[in-house]
Amino acid sequence: MVKKVLIVYAHQSSGSFNAAAKDLAVEVLTAQGCTVEVSDLYAMDFKAAATVDDIKGSVKDADHFSYLRETKLAFEEGRLSEDITKEHAKIIEADLIIFQFPMYWFGLPAIMKGWIDRVLTNGFAFSTEQLYSQGVFKDKKTMLSFTTGSLESMFSPTGINGDMNVTLWPIQNGILNYCGFQVLAPQIFWAPALAAAEDRKGMLEGWRTRLQGLQEEKPLSFIPLDSFDQKTFQLKPDVHEQHASKEFGLTVGIHLNKPLPPHSQMKAGC
Amino acid sequence: MVKKVLIVYAHQSSGSFNAAAKDLAVEVLTAQGCTVEVSDLYAMDFKAAATVDDIKGSVKDADHFSYLRETKLAFEEGRLSEDITKEHAKIIEADLIIFQFPMYWFGLPAIMKGWIDRVLTNGFAFSTEQLYSQGVFKDKKTMLSFTTGSLESMFSPTGINGDMNVTLWPIQNGILNYCGFQVLAPQIFWAPALAAAEDRKGMLEGWRTRLQGLQEEKPLSFIPLDSFDQKTFQLKPDVHEQHASKEFGLTVGIHLNKPLPPHSQMKAGC
Repeated sequence: MVKKVLIVYAHQSSGSFNAAAKDLAVEVLTAQGCTVEVSDLYAMDFKAAATVDDIKGSVKDADHFSYLRETKLAFEEGRLSEDITKEHAKIIEADLIIFQFPMYWFGLPAIMKGWIDRVLTNGFAFSTEQLYSQGVFKDKKTMLSFTTGSLESMFSPTGINGDMNVTLWPIQNGILNYCGFQVLAPQIFWAPALAAAEDRKGMLEGWRTRLQGLQEEKPLSFIPLDSFDQKTFQLKPDVHEQHASKEFGLTVGIHLNKPLPPHSQMKAGC
Repeated sequence: MVKKVLIVYAHQSSGSFNAAAKDLAVEVLTAQGCTVEVSDLYAMDFKAAATVDDIKGSVKDADHFSYLRETKLAFEEGRLSEDITKEHAKIIEADLIIFQFPMYWFGLPAIMKGWIDRVLTNGFAFSTEQLYSQGVFKDKKTMLSFTTGSLESMFSPTGINGDMNVTLWPIQNGILNYCGFQVLAPQIFWAPALAAAEDRKGMLEGWRTRLQGLQEEKPLSFIPLDSFDQKTFQLKPDVHEQHASKEFGLTVGIHLNKPLPPHSQMKAGC
């Protein structure tokens, strides 16, 4: 049961479609009895770059500074900067994290990528033992909710931008599933800037309806960690074998040189 | 013939493997007679977030601020901030742009994504007429050169992180190919932090050898713009038909529901 929600929000303008989508999520989820917190990244002037300033006190190896290693140590010793620890506290509280943003260049806007790079700290959000289906946040849900500049047809396996499932894989698998989150299907608002006012309104009404049923949604499918050999990180032979006669690959990335499972990064149960 | 090179570089430490890879590129390309410019993003304290501060003077529609529209206008009217116009000037000069970075969370570090979001301005780097194979930078080359935290085997179609070709698609197609660049195969340094000193040295020697032959390299293959219908942005029926009997999809994203062409985002001629 989702009781506490964190919305990580990246748009510069309170008059934007993204702002309307965020406001609607706050409204509908609050009406469901949820507590909703918003990290409004531009309003917070959230620092995007991963730098030594994220660590209080001296670093262990200044000559060969490794952000990954030094922030792990700083986390363990309580020496991370406050803007990071504040976001950590929000994540710990949240049952569901919604990322609301305009897609920039087939990916997250830099300010939101900065939130990922800096807040999902080594040791806090993952470890060598806790990753993927055994990840730290396996009891939490998450979802992307974003606008595109291009029409839906352009993001298809025959469209000029290619299959949206491919574009979503590095984010939904490499960031969200990696940390163990149960990843709900993305909410994609296709090119609202090109749509008529009436159609934009319809998109938001569709979002309202979805939010009302969000508690019951099943997450996207990823492969359990124990399907992989613990030493080689390759799919175990028996799992591979079980899948040998199947038409499609297991996931977009772990495709076994077969056709990609259709819509697997966009719809639950695919 | 590459004569002028821009290296967009994102690492915090001059003692890092990424720094060594960058320094080696400067050395080898300079020895070939190239002029090499480096944008050292952390040293420049490069602003990552796309904000209204990127525009001098007043914006056209403050209530519904659109970064895409407002920066296009500011570009046309010479009202972009100086840190952006300086990078524009470097891009105009360059025959080849190398992006040197550690992969963060299956993608670009936020500071480098910020360079993409802010510097590849609407009207400067692309337009509705100039995109993909007709893109603005079609006479320029580019390449990614990056380190990973994971071993190569983990980024395969049977490995836990999935096929690296999938992870590279949004960047190499959605950013680089979108702007028209000829995209050279990525230089991937697999997990140097896990390697012995001798092996790291070997990786750099491999990079030296590759740089010495870089002028002769052919770019990766993408689909020409005129293979798509100009109105629907769908693959033209005759192109689709020509490909009907082929085993693999055309590209990772435009896969036609077939197996992905192996290594197409990692090796030229695939």
